[in-house]
Amino acid sequence: MVGNVIVGQSGGPTSVINSSLAGVFKTAKDRGVKKVYGMRHGIKGLLDRQFVDLSEKLSSDMDIDLLKRTPSSYLGSCRYKLPEIGEDKETYDKIFAILDELDVKFFFYIGGNDSMDTIKKLSDYGLIIGSDIKFMGVPKTIDNDLAVTDHTPGFGSAAKYIAATMKEIIRDGLVYDYPTVTIVEIMGRNAGWLTAAAALARGEDCEGVDLIYLPEKVFDIDHFVDKVKELYANGRSMVIAISEGIKVLDGRYVFELSDHVEFVDAFGHKQLAGSAKFLANKIAAEIGVKTRAIELSSLQRCAAHMTSRTDITEAYNVGGAAVKAAFEGESGKVVVLKRISDDPYMCITETHDVHQIANIEKKVPLEWITEDDFVTDDLIHYIRPLIQAELSPIMVDGLPRHLNVDK
Amino acid sequence: MVGNVIVGQSGGPTSVINSSLAGVFKTAKDRGVKKVYGMRHGIKGLLDRQFVDLSEKLSSDMDIDLLKRTPSSYLGSCRYKLPEIGEDKETYDKIFAILDELDVKFFFYIGGNDSMDTIKKLSDYGLIIGSDIKFMGVPKTIDNDLAVTDHTPGFGSAAKYIAATMKEIIRDGLVYDYPTVTIVEIMGRNAGWLTAAAALARGEDCEGVDLIYLPEKVFDIDHFVDKVKELYANGRSMVIAISEGIKVLDGRYVFELSDHVEFVDAFGHKQLAGSAKFLANKIAAEIGVKTRAIELSSLQRCAAHMTSRTDITEAYNVGGAAVKAAFEGESGKVVVLKRISDDPYMCITETHDVHQIANIEKKVPLEWITEDDFVTDDLIHYIRPLIQAELSPIMVDGLPRHLNVDK
Repeated sequence: MVGNVIVGQSGGPTSVINSSLAGVFKTAKDRGVKKVYGMRHGIKGLLDRQFVDLSEKLSSDMDIDLLKRTPSSYLGSCRYKLPEIGEDKETYDKIFAILDELDVKFFFYIGGNDSMDTIKKLSDYGLIIGSDIKFMGVPKTIDNDLAVTDHTPGFGSAAKYIAATMKEIIRDGLVYDYPTVTIVEIMGRNAGWLTAAAALARGEDCEGVDLIYLPEKVFDIDHFVDKVKELYANGRSMVIAISEGIKVLDGRYVFELSDHVEFVDAFGHKQLAGSAKFLANKIAAEIGVKTRAIELSSLQRCAAHMTSRTDITEAYNVGGAAVKAAFEGESGKVVVLKRISDDPYMCITETHDVHQIANIEKKVPLEWITEDDFVTDDLIHYIRPLIQAELSPIMVDGLPRHLNVDK
Repeated sequence: MVGNVIVGQSGGPTSVINSSLAGVFKTAKDRGVKKVYGMRHGIKGLLDRQFVDLSEKLSSDMDIDLLKRTPSSYLGSCRYKLPEIGEDKETYDKIFAILDELDVKFFFYIGGNDSMDTIKKLSDYGLIIGSDIKFMGVPKTIDNDLAVTDHTPGFGSAAKYIAATMKEIIRDGLVYDYPTVTIVEIMGRNAGWLTAAAALARGEDCEGVDLIYLPEKVFDIDHFVDKVKELYANGRSMVIAISEGIKVLDGRYVFELSDHVEFVDAFGHKQLAGSAKFLANKIAAEIGVKTRAIELSSLQRCAAHMTSRTDITEAYNVGGAAVKAAFEGESGKVVVLKRISDDPYMCITETHDVHQIANIEKKVPLEWITEDDFVTDDLIHYIRPLIQAELSPIMVDGLPRHLNVDK
């Protein structure tokens, strides 16, 4: 194989993003590539000449298996958007110079829709300057908000973690003989896929979540209080799932309705936190019932001890498929998952033009959200296959073992 | 065996309290007891004549195995303190009448130090009226704050969950190439055992937690800010573990220093929440660094998918040992764990007078907390054996299966 490979990870981490890295690395090595470089901290790190020789880091099959079980981005991540090509050619020339210097002919970037923008711009620039480097996007995001693909690697494991912990929170929340209200806040700023996964908790052995609120629908606080009052009148303890991104009619996030200090992070993003707490206080004040607010927080994207084997395998496969496609000459593409059968569940990989994927958000269709504040069976059937089966952690001295690029 | 058995669960749930229930049930049935009753919602439910025949509910070996893997209290719980004997004989007479009616000769109560008060009072009253019913306490609490016993069933699994998730949070928190501060709030109102378990994350594959703050020591905010500044000056991302119960010199909880609304729950307990958030805001304001606050919340006590096999086994054993002791005539006692060897770790059960255990809190010794805001190796060595080995969840359709008394 002529030329080397470089691979980077970008955006928010997931539990299985390293499985895609393993898929890229192993597939490239198996096809005789001499060097597989890893960018440290994505394209931003590469601009600072931060990279590692992955063959030195991943020297045994055990390393590959540990990598698959390591949460967060093994190579480090960044949140960095390349400038528009017309505005800053210098940055692009610098990147291509570094790639040439490393004799890189194949460039893989594992990330969400922001990161696919990097693949789009680099492959566009490559065409302009007549470069023969192939650029391929490898999808990941717990949010499942990428266009074209049936679902994104990372979503299934986050959904499994959410459904499994909701079952546990429900057991915990229903333990007393007086009614309580537990409100659980789940990630997803604009898309409700993860919050919808809470619906999977319901089953033969579990009462399930009572109400689910996604950001795709305007959140009506009075209606919400009425629904809780209705259940409370039946003497019921209840568990409610809300998305961190739910907004009221005037466009404000629910947490913005409180008099708490409002935070803006280093990137100018409003820090979403406290919608569950705000609603728990509201319910406690209006109904006089004991309430509790739980934020599932970053464990949703890093609980590698509770991953979906289906997800891990698909994450590996999209990495491998990206390498295969690039080696066959494709560029400026993203590997996507196409569900070819529901029963039994079967998914294959395809490649798709990055221009139709980058910067586009896929939301939960409104027809999958019910009038009684839940989600449809169609939505549950869509998610269910994605959480199937497990990949047991490798436990050492009582704790899951990870792979650490710095150790 | 003459007479029936009754067993109840009380106080905050744990991941392994049902393993103790399994130990009581199985040991009693194996010794030929005709009926094993389960109180619904502890002694409070019993007073309302709420109980089940456990033989009907637990009819197969599979049920026992599912019970061991079910978080929270299978029979339901209560937070109810019996009146002083001198003040209200009526309540006691009612309880003993119900027990007589059910032909109960052996009474087991699984709980923490508040629940052991119930065993103390019932056995005292039994002596006064000359009852031949045997009363035994079975210890549980994630807080590990029970006197006399080396540790409490429930603590090891919570410690394992905390250490495992801290490892994941650390991988997630160190992913970017700029410094961030993650502050994780851990349960434990007065005792810092659980927060100390965060120290176990450090190892060959993990940078570990940087700073640990337990409630046993006065929390000095200026000192804290200085410590964070010091680490930040080295360009370090950091992860910090704090107990929900840390207090400043004047006795206020850290979260009480904020201008947030203060909550008091139905029992007059102040709702502890927000110390991590308060400190994260403080650090963000003073240093200008990106911060994140995480509350591990109730998953610490209900994450049955990540239990310690050592803990599950010991929880089962204290249940069994309570039955054995009661059948041999003991009463007014609590089963305790005695560590007879550290290397290899070995623990046996003993029984101990309930009067020396009820209502007493065991805290982390100050000599196990270091000057540089961490814990000693002695404390780590004390906890390490308690998190060893696993009991895999039984996964059905992608999720851990539980046993549900109402289904």
